[in-house]
Amino acid sequence: MSARAVIELSGHIIDSMVLPRVMDSVMDMGATFHVEEFRVGTRLDESSFARLTIEAENEEQLAAVIAACQEHGASVVGAEDAVTLPAPTDGVFPDLFYTTTNQPTSLLIGGQWVTVDGIEMDCGVVIVGGAARAVPVTDVLAGDQVVVGRAGVRLMPVERGRGKEVFGFTTSSLSPEKPKHQVIRELAETMREVRARNGRICFVGGPAIIHTGAGPHLARLIALGYVQVLFAGNGLAAYDIESQFFGTSLGIGLEKGMPIESGHELHMRTVNRVRAVGGIRAAVESGMLRRGVMFECIGSGVEYVLAGSVRDDGPLPDVVTDMVEARRRMRAALTGVDLCIMCASMLHAIATGNLLPAATRTVCVDINPAVVAKLADRGSAQTLGLVTDVESFLRELGEALAGEMG
Amino acid sequence: MSARAVIELSGHIIDSMVLPRVMDSVMDMGATFHVEEFRVGTRLDESSFARLTIEAENEEQLAAVIAACQEHGASVVGAEDAVTLPAPTDGVFPDLFYTTTNQPTSLLIGGQWVTVDGIEMDCGVVIVGGAARAVPVTDVLAGDQVVVGRAGVRLMPVERGRGKEVFGFTTSSLSPEKPKHQVIRELAETMREVRARNGRICFVGGPAIIHTGAGPHLARLIALGYVQVLFAGNGLAAYDIESQFFGTSLGIGLEKGMPIESGHELHMRTVNRVRAVGGIRAAVESGMLRRGVMFECIGSGVEYVLAGSVRDDGPLPDVVTDMVEARRRMRAALTGVDLCIMCASMLHAIATGNLLPAATRTVCVDINPAVVAKLADRGSAQTLGLVTDVESFLRELGEALAGEMG
Amino acid sequence: MSARAVIELSGHIIDSMVLPRVMDSVMDMGATFHVEEFRVGTRLDESSFARLTIEAENEEQLAAVIAACQEHGASVVGAEDAVTLPAPTDGVFPDLFYTTTNQPTSLLIGGQWVTVDGIEMDCGVVIVGGAARAVPVTDVLAGDQVVVGRAGVRLMPVERGRGKEVFGFTTSSLSPEKPKHQVIRELAETMREVRARNGRICFVGGPAIIHTGAGPHLARLIALGYVQVLFAGNGLAAYDIESQFFGTSLGIGLEKGMPIESGHELHMRTVNRVRAVGGIRAAVESGMLRRGVMFECIGSGVEYVLAGSVRDDGPLPDVVTDMVEARRRMRAALTGVDLCIMCASMLHAIATGNLLPAATRTVCVDINPAVVAKLADRGSAQTLGLVTDVESFLRELGEALAGEMG
Amino acid sequence: MSARAVIELSGHIIDSMVLPRVMDSVMDMGATFHVEEFRVGTRLDESSFARLTIEAENEEQLAAVIAACQEHGASVVGAEDAVTLPAPTDGVFPDLFYTTTNQPTSLLIGGQWVTVDGIEMDCGVVIVGGAARAVPVTDVLAGDQVVVGRAGVRLMPVERGRGKEVFGFTTSSLSPEKPKHQVIRELAETMREVRARNGRICFVGGPAIIHTGAGPHLARLIALGYVQVLFAGNGLAAYDIESQFFGTSLGIGLEKGMPIESGHELHMRTVNRVRAVGGIRAAVESGMLRRGVMFECIGSGVEYVLAGSVRDDGPLPDVVTDMVEARRRMRAALTGVDLCIMCASMLHAIATGNLLPAATRTVCVDINPAVVAKLADRGSAQTLGLVTDVESFLRELGEALAGEMG
Repeated sequence: MSARAVIELSGHIIDSMVLPRVMDSVMDMGATFHVEEFRVGTRLDESSFARLTIEAENEEQLAAVIAACQEHGASVVGAEDAVTLPAPTDGVFPDLFYTTTNQPTSLLIGGQWVTVDGIEMDCGVVIVGGAARAVPVTDVLAGDQVVVGRAGVRLMPVERGRGKEVFGFTTSSLSPEKPKHQVIRELAETMREVRARNGRICFVGGPAIIHTGAGPHLARLIALGYVQVLFAGNGLAAYDIESQFFGTSLGIGLEKGMPIESGHELHMRTVNRVRAVGGIRAAVESGMLRRGVMFECIGSGVEYVLAGSVRDDGPLPDVVTDMVEARRRMRAALTGVDLCIMCASMLHAIATGNLLPAATRTVCVDINPAVVAKLADRGSAQTLGLVTDVESFLRELGEALAGEMG
Repeated sequence: MSARAVIELSGHIIDSMVLPRVMDSVMDMGATFHVEEFRVGTRLDESSFARLTIEAENEEQLAAVIAACQEHGASVVGAEDAVTLPAPTDGVFPDLFYTTTNQPTSLLIGGQWVTVDGIEMDCGVVIVGGAARAVPVTDVLAGDQVVVGRAGVRLMPVERGRGKEVFGFTTSSLSPEKPKHQVIRELAETMREVRARNGRICFVGGPAIIHTGAGPHLARLIALGYVQVLFAGNGLAAYDIESQFFGTSLGIGLEKGMPIESGHELHMRTVNRVRAVGGIRAAVESGMLRRGVMFECIGSGVEYVLAGSVRDDGPLPDVVTDMVEARRRMRAALTGVDLCIMCASMLHAIATGNLLPAATRTVCVDINPAVVAKLADRGSAQTLGLVTDVESFLRELGEALAGEMG
Repeated sequence: MSARAVIELSGHIIDSMVLPRVMDSVMDMGATFHVEEFRVGTRLDESSFARLTIEAENEEQLAAVIAACQEHGASVVGAEDAVTLPAPTDGVFPDLFYTTTNQPTSLLIGGQWVTVDGIEMDCGVVIVGGAARAVPVTDVLAGDQVVVGRAGVRLMPVERGRGKEVFGFTTSSLSPEKPKHQVIRELAETMREVRARNGRICFVGGPAIIHTGAGPHLARLIALGYVQVLFAGNGLAAYDIESQFFGTSLGIGLEKGMPIESGHELHMRTVNRVRAVGGIRAAVESGMLRRGVMFECIGSGVEYVLAGSVRDDGPLPDVVTDMVEARRRMRAALTGVDLCIMCASMLHAIATGNLLPAATRTVCVDINPAVVAKLADRGSAQTLGLVTDVESFLRELGEALAGEMG
Repeated sequence: MSARAVIELSGHIIDSMVLPRVMDSVMDMGATFHVEEFRVGTRLDESSFARLTIEAENEEQLAAVIAACQEHGASVVGAEDAVTLPAPTDGVFPDLFYTTTNQPTSLLIGGQWVTVDGIEMDCGVVIVGGAARAVPVTDVLAGDQVVVGRAGVRLMPVERGRGKEVFGFTTSSLSPEKPKHQVIRELAETMREVRARNGRICFVGGPAIIHTGAGPHLARLIALGYVQVLFAGNGLAAYDIESQFFGTSLGIGLEKGMPIESGHELHMRTVNRVRAVGGIRAAVESGMLRRGVMFECIGSGVEYVLAGSVRDDGPLPDVVTDMVEARRRMRAALTGVDLCIMCASMLHAIATGNLLPAATRTVCVDINPAVVAKLADRGSAQTLGLVTDVESFLRELGEALAGEMG
């Protein structure tokens, strides 16, 4: 073992699993540690401190181990300033650029720890005038000073909540075999609190919301003021409007659940009619569209981004068909969002999850446990997963928020 | 083509797919047909008739093709009496015994078509004194006259309903992406009709009913008189009783959905207490058990069969641990059942499905589409599959039956 | 019943289910039929003919019933020429435009039945100079003559194969519980036949191909000349190139299956490097990229379309980020494709399925039965669904094509 | 906080998560802790020690917290001897009996820590002559001295492996999206080691093994000596024998994967024939059965238990139809088993998992991720989950064991 470094950890490093994870990583990667100092908080509100020497076989291994420890929240003793190189051309980082996680991140700049703004997964970090900002590769400009390597980087992983609210008690998803009644009530309570302090709630939804007849429940949440941002695709919007124009959703009658023969025509006709008037807002203003999810979005001033996909029919004129542009708009709309509810969506939910900082609380609801597991697994301690029917979830949530729930 | 036979079909053989299926089978098996006579009903209430000559390469192929056609409802022209051989010993059929399907079946005995009683999948048929009865292999006795081969056998597949009720409009399962509200209402209506004419309803349930907090909804269905037979395993009963004794289900608190530390003790303690008093009825009579699914079963005189399985904890003393005996009791309890609702159960639901004649209407509800597909696929045209959360299904069904539904 | 029309059907209308489906639809929709004439083919190679009078309660219901019958292949007796109206503006059809299915379609123009070119789901039909062409709504121009209503429209649904090849014997998906060995051999045989007559094969793949270590198997199929068109997203291409640059796939080491700490950096660094050189072709030409799926595509002249999505990291410069443009390129690349293999992809597979005519044979392979069911259910009789592990599927397929299979 | 107790922890209590879990449990349950003493091992091979005072609001809460801490491996300072009460009648424990987990457990008896023999989930513990033994509730006899409460109980949770072998590197299941090649090789290596030291391997299999054509692969594992115990149900054995008698599996031809018309007859005929000769061994000895999984079991002296279920057809005469008896036989057969491979089985795999001590390494293989997750989640650090096709898994495993793998 010829390479070594000293790292420090502080905070609730035992019960929030920081220290065990660091020790784990070191050993899993074939390096060893020596505990130089260890002061344990004797009560749960006291914080602990540890200083460890890491020994690795060579500098390359050491760098990898240090990187892993940093991701768990360790800081390197004797850290040097972050190093930057200029971006070679527009849309390209220097080769060894530091890739962000979604955890709160600081950089040592001129001997001062500076928080990285706009933190988001898989970006680079650009330093301008002593400030640091996460920048997606599509948006970097030639000559921007981009952080390279891991010197001067510190992460502060979000600690998981402690048994006080719905996001705290579960580290894993709620399986289809657990009672959801109380969880939905507590989520409603959280939504009320967010709105009471003027916080923003983002709702990400898939077309099954309309197919299952849950459109009116979602429209109600919007009308009650519990949605400030809506992310969806062409499908949700088109089926919602189809259900208002024709009473069907992809040709399935919402009243009886029976297919209407030639029903797919109605779907395309819906899209075509909205194209003809020029968009959803125009459809509302012309009086064509008088109810439903998109109607309530227009009425309540909800900021919506309909991001296209390669499987879209039509699409509606409101759909952003360029994916880089769609991500830019979603990123902008997420500013100030502190709760994100994802329902029956995989594509848009994953996209949203990638754009969110780890500290944002998210709720993932789907009838498919694999989807919930995938969405809930984004390194956040603030995720609540529910495996259930989206129609009954939204109905119950609406009842709880409207004060109708027993 | 050196082997041939003539078959006849009658009834709604075109629109109920009988004729196309027969033609399909003949061709898929490499034989050919020649249509000798064909009279089509000119209106939908008139029946059609077809007579076909089947040609095969040899007698063996012909027998297989004829067998396939018979399963679709064809009868062989010039049929001879059914042939029997004596069972060689108790519990063993003659080698070439005719294996039953779940479709209504008749035998030609002494030139008369006689209906097989107690029809059920995968049995043999025993003829006694001109009457025919389906008998499972465990129950045949040495010397019983058992039908062999396919001579003198005729099936009359149940025709699928025609758009009038909930079992009629869907040949496939309702996916998680379709609205269920109206379907549940129509199911409630069907249940009322069945009870109005004093019919019997069988409910097959799995432990997730209790885990999801739906126990009170099921208890209510029983108290309202909508369940005459309950099939379940040790799990449903033990968790139901645990939830009454301790407010938990396998150690998960039903109020909050949070695990109680050491909760699995409560489950075993529940089973042990019921063992100590001697059974569920004794637990009710002693006043220990005052609410819940099993309590209501005792109170309402529901005939229940708790069939054991190799993974059971305990089990409760009411559990039938011998599987041959459990099947006998289930078979007996199913007499006169004309509607069967299967919820969140796979093992007991498949077992029940195997015991039911094709004409019995069945409803399969599960959050897992694969389970619904497997259960719905039993050759019956009377099956309704719903992919949804069992808690919301039972809640809505209870509301509909109690007249509380909007 | 005050509205009526006469329809005709011919061909293998019984055993290919055309007549039963028509009768079914008429009755399900509340109308009635009267069989005016019926001539049945007496042998399986003779075709049958039926003429039915349909009676409905009013003209609106009649139109819906006729539309349904047309989708099953019925033609209206005394059909009149197709009617057109001009498109009001670019990108908008007339309100009552005829919406295409993916079935072969003809129009009566000037008393002649004319085949619609470029048939594809959910388009309109534009008539120019006696020729008819399916046009997506994004591509219609103001003034184009667009077919409205259903007059003069005739569909000829593709008949399902008859037991001779792998696409013929199964109408439903192969479940995880069936043997696949022989099916994969027959698929290999079909692929050889397609290539022998210079046909084109399209492969649609998802990133799991790389994650599971099946990248080399796919690269081999390409090198052997069995892929002419590749549709994928940013993920498959980026993970493939990452696996060549770093031996990992999204940071998971492909040799050991163990996560590499900080592995997500490698993924972003891969994308950034390809952005730096200007694209995949440049990466190959510069010698950076020497193996793998994308390398073989460049080497073998495979036409590839990498269609973006809102969840993409990066993306690679080859990714088409505008969805309307991506669909145009995919549509163009599909010309002449007569076999399409979809593996471990949902988004791109659905998109491709929507662009394919019903007559194109498709193979859908996924470990998730729900995905296979969704993809296989596109009204085609030429679909083979396989629920299996994509790595073992591609390995076996490669062995069969290279003649190594036992 | 008026109730308190002192607990101690020692070993790798930080990196094996023992201490964090204890702290977590205390706080989640609303109690608090005070760290009295803490000595941290400064190198990874040194053990750590902690002594904590737990404070709770009352004795009842304290007891629950202590119980939770004990399950994580804490021992109570100043522990008193375990307390027993006599079982009131056969098959019934005293009400407050201590319920076992599957972790290694000791009892303080006469001031000495004594290991509990035959540890298994959900049993009671009977003390006879200073020795302690886990006893299922069905087997306890009136008057047996049964441990009650938690005094004098200590658990020593199995620590998870450390990166050296296939069971060590993954705490969670291998998803369908990860490479399995290397994992299967390492499993083969583990199997060789187990057999080299004369260890016993148990294989638990479901009928899909036969349906997918993997029967010969399993038969080969048995012939090669890599299976000492086989647990299955009626299905696997009956389909295996059917495939030898008729070349089908539940009527599906294994060569072509096509259904044989009337195929379900073949299944019942198979069962009937084995009933006629008296059992599987008799079928082998008579020369009727000459190949396959059950044939190899007889030939290699594999101890097999075929446990019945309520959905069985037949069953075969070898099937144990009483569930209490089946569990007794499985329990006996598991003696000395140190590796258990579960493939495509849910019912028998869960049953087996419940009978195994936590220290036994288990491998769970299924194409359904939900099944793998359920089986892998049994509190063991020695579980390897693989989501893949069982046919390709068993083929590759056989190739690796026979030394054919590249």
